[in-house]
Amino acid sequence: MSKGLDHETLNENVKNVQYAVRGELYLRASELQKEGKKIIFTNVGNPHALGQKPLSFPRQVVALCQAPFLLDDPNVGLVFPADAIARAKHYLSLTSGGLGAYSDSRGLPGIRKEVAEFIERRDGYPSDPELIFLTDGASKGVMQMLNTMIRGEKDGILVPVPQYPLYSAAIALCGGSLVPYYLEESANWGLDVNNLRQSVAQARSNGITVKAMVIINPGNPTGQCLSIEDLQELLRFCSREKLVLLADEVYQQNVYQDERPFISSRKVLMDMGTPISKDVQLVSFHTVSKGYWGECGQRGGYFEMTNIPAESVDEIYKVASISLSPNVPGQIFLGLMVNPPKPGDISYQKFVQESKTILESLRKRAHIMTNGFNSCRNVVCNFTEGAMYSFPQIRLPPKAIEVAKMAGKVPDVYYCLKLLEATGISTVPGSGFGQKEGVFHLRTTILPAEEDMPAIMDSFKKFNDAFMEQYEDQRGYSRM
Amino acid sequence: MSKGLDHETLNENVKNVQYAVRGELYLRASELQKEGKKIIFTNVGNPHALGQKPLSFPRQVVALCQAPFLLDDPNVGLVFPADAIARAKHYLSLTSGGLGAYSDSRGLPGIRKEVAEFIERRDGYPSDPELIFLTDGASKGVMQMLNTMIRGEKDGILVPVPQYPLYSAAIALCGGSLVPYYLEESANWGLDVNNLRQSVAQARSNGITVKAMVIINPGNPTGQCLSIEDLQELLRFCSREKLVLLADEVYQQNVYQDERPFISSRKVLMDMGTPISKDVQLVSFHTVSKGYWGECGQRGGYFEMTNIPAESVDEIYKVASISLSPNVPGQIFLGLMVNPPKPGDISYQKFVQESKTILESLRKRAHIMTNGFNSCRNVVCNFTEGAMYSFPQIRLPPKAIEVAKMAGKVPDVYYCLKLLEATGISTVPGSGFGQKEGVFHLRTTILPAEEDMPAIMDSFKKFNDAFMEQYEDQRGYSRM
Repeated sequence: MSKGLDHETLNENVKNVQYAVRGELYLRASELQKEGKKIIFTNVGNPHALGQKPLSFPRQVVALCQAPFLLDDPNVGLVFPADAIARAKHYLSLTSGGLGAYSDSRGLPGIRKEVAEFIERRDGYPSDPELIFLTDGASKGVMQMLNTMIRGEKDGILVPVPQYPLYSAAIALCGGSLVPYYLEESANWGLDVNNLRQSVAQARSNGITVKAMVIINPGNPTGQCLSIEDLQELLRFCSREKLVLLADEVYQQNVYQDERPFISSRKVLMDMGTPISKDVQLVSFHTVSKGYWGECGQRGGYFEMTNIPAESVDEIYKVASISLSPNVPGQIFLGLMVNPPKPGDISYQKFVQESKTILESLRKRAHIMTNGFNSCRNVVCNFTEGAMYSFPQIRLPPKAIEVAKMAGKVPDVYYCLKLLEATGISTVPGSGFGQKEGVFHLRTTILPAEEDMPAIMDSFKKFNDAFMEQYEDQRGYSRM
Repeated sequence: MSKGLDHETLNENVKNVQYAVRGELYLRASELQKEGKKIIFTNVGNPHALGQKPLSFPRQVVALCQAPFLLDDPNVGLVFPADAIARAKHYLSLTSGGLGAYSDSRGLPGIRKEVAEFIERRDGYPSDPELIFLTDGASKGVMQMLNTMIRGEKDGILVPVPQYPLYSAAIALCGGSLVPYYLEESANWGLDVNNLRQSVAQARSNGITVKAMVIINPGNPTGQCLSIEDLQELLRFCSREKLVLLADEVYQQNVYQDERPFISSRKVLMDMGTPISKDVQLVSFHTVSKGYWGECGQRGGYFEMTNIPAESVDEIYKVASISLSPNVPGQIFLGLMVNPPKPGDISYQKFVQESKTILESLRKRAHIMTNGFNSCRNVVCNFTEGAMYSFPQIRLPPKAIEVAKMAGKVPDVYYCLKLLEATGISTVPGSGFGQKEGVFHLRTTILPAEEDMPAIMDSFKKFNDAFMEQYEDQRGYSRM
């Protein structure tokens, strides 16, 4: 008789989950690090781990909120600016007992109001704080929405391929079906509504009820920014097909070109007017982990619901209540992100300077990386228009594929492991995100420090070109 | 054709969840508060919301971790003690990028090591940091363990009745079956292994696979502390029946009598020796939200696994990875809780003084509250030996039950709503925790400020005694 936590008795959905971002490559990299090898972790979008400094003002405010006794200390002005002190008092006044008290399970009402005001400024349409829920990072919100919708394997969610594996993992955990739609690599990872239609039709012919569609804009891992036209077209598609649109917009502040600025799904929907603006069920996600904040470890996020029936919102609130409340410091970070220092504030210049430095450097790094990849043998890479990733296609020679299979590895996993062992660069194989059959990629973040970037790309090129030469060479096979 | 977030199409498990702690009473209390009524929120164990001050030392350390630039500030010593500065440097050295970087999904290795050392000091047996996972509060850990085990409605979890509704809610959300075992109110909410046996036998006769047993020690809502003998007996029971023991030990620092100090399930298990010490699968939970810390809003917790197969631990790690990492500031709080200032440290005296003040006051409040309830008409209440709650039985007269039913309310919900409206005291009806048929209770925390406690109990008594008089009186029925 087996016991409750014996492996063979576990929830099959748990066993079916795959999560590549912290999968085989990450585990191997951690091992090598323990053995003393220098590892460049580019597998997770974790900017502070790669040396990005936190913005000063939000850290000052949250530090003061953690230490409210300092607010009465006559020396506090020696180490904190007056506007940080004032802002800490403001946020503490929104809590009922400081950072140590549970908030409402949807988050502090005062901060949800600041989020609504931010959305209104951004989109030009009012937003209702009662339809904004704060979460421990955006991932938790995504998981909650999927769990709210998925009843079983006959419920499907349209997910872009390549995708951020949060989606495949959470859908598997909920026991639902992932319905893939392919992004067009040759069209800079653009959307093709014909693909979407075919995916839905095929899923339905298999008895799947397609309930929602995920978009990631700017794209992860693919880095593209969706145009207004693309967004309009997919909103019409969601309306026609009765799909909830789950809009992962966590990279909305990470845009590295000027032709296609970020535009929110909600703004496009509202601009389209009735009836569609009152029809499409939309949930959009945002976070303090990305942008120029990169405050991943604080776990602050929100989702905003549009056109969701009140009784469904009540169910979502009820389930959020089981975990009592999102962490309160993360909520304060979110408040600060949507309501940063204003012109005239003591900390304004410094805040703007710090933010610009980070964003401009990310833009430069996006260029260095794309150019670096495109200079390599058998590597082609779309430009990173937004987000934090580069997703080059690695054209593996048949012999390399054969060798990988003999080693019992998926070919891109094999390539990435060899890269890791040769250079210490820890990436994620494209197979973790999904890709067309026989096509291989890897994902790397653009986050290594700007000054380290040329050396990293040189090291990559040296490894890659030798790898390619080895397997393209007729004699390569015998030399391995 | 309905849409993906229309209520009728939602996951039935979500709709089946009930969560009383933030249910009808809480919502009504929030409404009344908005209308300007003074509400005493005793529905949630949320100490800081009721005026408990945070401990200074941990807040100083976390504030410094949030503002690492202060560590180089020549004035930092004017506002922070040297040992807090040293400790902040220590914790920052355990991170890979400060509080803004994701940690390993199990939490920072250095803090898991501190937790393991704490467990070893507490229990006298070594603990393995690799089997300790840090979480965003204990609830998240409980939910993850239940989700790991439950495959469907034929999987059952033994849960005490009355119970903290996290368990019923999470089991419903996972689509499993709650198998109740009744605690004996007349034996100060003690365990009766005969009850347990009957519950398991009955569940099995209904085709249920009973996978695990939950205990809450000290008890929530019931306040009892389990004896060594009780723990031994239930561990033998778990061994015989192949049940995982889920030991909710979040109130281990909240004990208000000296006869039955807290003893961990793990220590009792290890003391029993082989074969049982290597047999029972045990997961124990702890948090920074309770104790004399009460840092609920920070969302810091951990679970420790004993005798769980390695391949199951790997699955749990994989699923934890989907959410990337628990919030890092909450992890630091946990480190500080398990590794507080030591004799000789600059902050030691102050820390001990603050902790003792809180615990001694909680002990007094437990007495005031129990005595207060027992002085009321038709109210009987076991003494709160531990945890943070009082769970008096309210003996409702038949007429009151009748009136409640006419109003479409469960009788104890009716009573608690009337109490709320008359006095502003926001409690949770016993039906939210489970109770025997025809027996009624309410749960209140012992957290209102000590100086407010006599007035609150007077106000309760005045309401209760009038309520009882109204419905016990022959003419009462016509007077409503």
